[in-house]
Amino acid sequence: MKEPQNAPPVAVVIGAGDATGGAIARRFARGGYTAVVTRRHQEALIPLTKTITAEGGQAHGFGCDARDENAMIELFRHVEEQIGEVEVVVFNIGANVHFSITETTERVYRKVWEMAALAGFLTGREAAKVMVPRNKGTIIFTGATASLRGSSGFSAFAGAKFALRALAQSMARELGPKGIHVAHPIIDGAIDTDFIRENFPDKYAQKGQDGILNPEHIAEQYWQIHCQPRDSWTHELDLRPWMETF
Amino acid sequence: MKEPQNAPPVAVVIGAGDATGGAIARRFARGGYTAVVTRRHQEALIPLTKTITAEGGQAHGFGCDARDENAMIELFRHVEEQIGEVEVVVFNIGANVHFSITETTERVYRKVWEMAALAGFLTGREAAKVMVPRNKGTIIFTGATASLRGSSGFSAFAGAKFALRALAQSMARELGPKGIHVAHPIIDGAIDTDFIRENFPDKYAQKGQDGILNPEHIAEQYWQIHCQPRDSWTHELDLRPWMETF
Amino acid sequence: MKEPQNAPPVAVVIGAGDATGGAIARRFARGGYTAVVTRRHQEALIPLTKTITAEGGQAHGFGCDARDENAMIELFRHVEEQIGEVEVVVFNIGANVHFSITETTERVYRKVWEMAALAGFLTGREAAKVMVPRNKGTIIFTGATASLRGSSGFSAFAGAKFALRALAQSMARELGPKGIHVAHPIIDGAIDTDFIRENFPDKYAQKGQDGILNPEHIAEQYWQIHCQPRDSWTHELDLRPWMETF
Amino acid sequence: MKEPQNAPPVAVVIGAGDATGGAIARRFARGGYTAVVTRRHQEALIPLTKTITAEGGQAHGFGCDARDENAMIELFRHVEEQIGEVEVVVFNIGANVHFSITETTERVYRKVWEMAALAGFLTGREAAKVMVPRNKGTIIFTGATASLRGSSGFSAFAGAKFALRALAQSMARELGPKGIHVAHPIIDGAIDTDFIRENFPDKYAQKGQDGILNPEHIAEQYWQIHCQPRDSWTHELDLRPWMETF
Repeated sequence: MKEPQNAPPVAVVIGAGDATGGAIARRFARGGYTAVVTRRHQEALIPLTKTITAEGGQAHGFGCDARDENAMIELFRHVEEQIGEVEVVVFNIGANVHFSITETTERVYRKVWEMAALAGFLTGREAAKVMVPRNKGTIIFTGATASLRGSSGFSAFAGAKFALRALAQSMARELGPKGIHVAHPIIDGAIDTDFIRENFPDKYAQKGQDGILNPEHIAEQYWQIHCQPRDSWTHELDLRPWMETF
Repeated sequence: MKEPQNAPPVAVVIGAGDATGGAIARRFARGGYTAVVTRRHQEALIPLTKTITAEGGQAHGFGCDARDENAMIELFRHVEEQIGEVEVVVFNIGANVHFSITETTERVYRKVWEMAALAGFLTGREAAKVMVPRNKGTIIFTGATASLRGSSGFSAFAGAKFALRALAQSMARELGPKGIHVAHPIIDGAIDTDFIRENFPDKYAQKGQDGILNPEHIAEQYWQIHCQPRDSWTHELDLRPWMETF
Repeated sequence: MKEPQNAPPVAVVIGAGDATGGAIARRFARGGYTAVVTRRHQEALIPLTKTITAEGGQAHGFGCDARDENAMIELFRHVEEQIGEVEVVVFNIGANVHFSITETTERVYRKVWEMAALAGFLTGREAAKVMVPRNKGTIIFTGATASLRGSSGFSAFAGAKFALRALAQSMARELGPKGIHVAHPIIDGAIDTDFIRENFPDKYAQKGQDGILNPEHIAEQYWQIHCQPRDSWTHELDLRPWMETF
Repeated sequence: MKEPQNAPPVAVVIGAGDATGGAIARRFARGGYTAVVTRRHQEALIPLTKTITAEGGQAHGFGCDARDENAMIELFRHVEEQIGEVEVVVFNIGANVHFSITETTERVYRKVWEMAALAGFLTGREAAKVMVPRNKGTIIFTGATASLRGSSGFSAFAGAKFALRALAQSMARELGPKGIHVAHPIIDGAIDTDFIRENFPDKYAQKGQDGILNPEHIAEQYWQIHCQPRDSWTHELDLRPWMETF
């Protein structure tokens, strides 16, 4: 099967396994994009793609290890050939771990980097390959507090997030003048996810007073970044709840 | 005359003398706010207030030296009593000058600071006074490239813009937990203004390819910042044309 | 009296009123410089100049309001004519205050800026005037935690320290290629001073375990910055006690 | 053979393959430390260890791939058992490459990170393991311009250097209160090396006017960082030639 004529443009969300990635995919689907969503295991994407379809959108889920170069090359090739032109790519894989430096294993240090930085590089590079010839597209890398500051116990996570920010800056400076918008929003606060509810109940208790980020609102910001006219692009912005200390 | 019951909320733009301040005022007026605009000379505001009215909005222009403490106190008192509750305040006065350090006079150094920092402080403080009791409001300070970096010849301008950024950070950290959203957008590029057209014709020539910022688009960003739900506020973001080197 | 032939070079310390400024002056005097020290009231400098003399050095104390342009011009003129060539200038005036934004008066906001930023500008400019023709000299501006971050309650102090940092950056970029070394050390912690002993006794109690900065050690750093060969100059460095949170 | 009683303390330099690493090792040897130097191939270290010995110092060279966890564990075990207590560790491996994003291979991206970040992590962790129980030691990671800024063509190199900076920050915040000094000097300019002479002859031509960094001067800075009393430690400082644009 070949990509149909006049297929809608595609928004790829790498790491649609959590609430944020899912909300972003749904937002772009509502905006008329075909959502291509990935996570490690394809079957886990079924609820998301069903939701998007139920909301009147188009969605395709792919099981894909974003750390695997060939898998990523194949993903982009397949999407471009079979689904539509990739106009938006969001990289949304995190890997938050906390260990004292002496307790951080080489395996953990490497794995966190592979998930949060190497996979971001592969995503960004494959996105650039299809976007540069068209001089058009938006690439968004999700940042975190640890993108800006290395704190005690965060050697691995901050290392990976710093590296991802370096990638976003390098790509923005290289690809901006080629018409491609590269952005790096920094989420500085807890998000309303199962992970926070289960592991940080005190934090989660602030949900009632808007003390944690709503994934839908993050998604709306990503959409607005994409919609910025090219005379006024944002590369970096922070997002945090009103009551968050910073 | 007293403020009528159910008067629309007010958006105050301090420094509505240029294209950007005017566009911001018009955007908030279109959003249902009564625009209160100021610059040094009241009569110079007539075209702007007329435009807002012609677009179906409400506007009041005040001649006001924003460096004058009493004038600013009186402005806010008058607006609150006679026009409506101040919900949005935008500080938009710049004072871009360029002199080598040995050629910078005390008078210039002081005046630039008074215009771009002291006036910002007075604006921010008076805004805080009316907003804190209501736990509600948005205060936006316009930043520039010189807010982030002191370059050769910019001792005075960067000094004032750095100080304004310090104000924005301090107020954000103090007032965020009181429900007031303080933001500091950084405009990193030339704006489509008479000043640029007359003084930087080469830069202005890039307008045709979106190489300079459209004031309407800056205004839209300010509006979107104001509209952010309080679980996901932005404090700082950059805005620059796609082809701008950074 | 005219400057004698072969007079030793001069190190000027503006703001030698506290332990740090005094220690810096003594360090440069030990290094063979004639120390010229200033503070508001000349008689308060007598203990310092006596100490320097007793240590075998040369010192001159001047009562001088560093916010007064004419006083600063006259100071540099006098020193160059009567004492020696100014090779080192250290600006060391702080003005740490803490007020909520709504409680910060215009008078305080202005005064803090005049002391910590305007006086720094006048110092730096007069220093540049004598150094540029010689393509030689070192200018050091003392920074603080508030130079990097605007915190709640620090609108005035952070505003002034941010402005001073902008000055240091602008001057470094302008004057470095002219052979003048401009540096901005950031003191991030309490210093062993009467002020800390009297106002922050809990902090002062950490002195026994080196939890507060020793002014002599700060002075040694300033000396080392001055001694750096011109192929490897430092513009900015932080200094903090080992146990200080940052 | 067991470490002799009263053996001198050890300074380990990981990546002593270039002029800078060699100069650092020699400086610490002159300061009374036994220099332990590593690079990939042991025989290439012979000139350096001979020079140190000829200068009256103690030196041991080890061929060691710093990306290899077991090799690094074994290195530190061996040094502690056979040579002396590790008091200083300097990580000095760079991996400067320049490729557009679409031309950057996964192999290059990974290798640059392994050399400049993973190896730094292994070095820092093994250093921490021996230093934490003694509450004493200095760990220095060499930074570069790319540690602060991701530029076009530097996705891989900036990614690795950003990650190393995150490591340095995380370790400084974790280990400072345990008495261990972690520093991150940023070398912002070309160094007087064979690499620069051969590849950037125009830059190298500035050597006559001190336009490139002298490795001996860098080494002196590292020594001074190590010598700082613990009430006034520097975590980050920049080093650049007087004529370097920044």
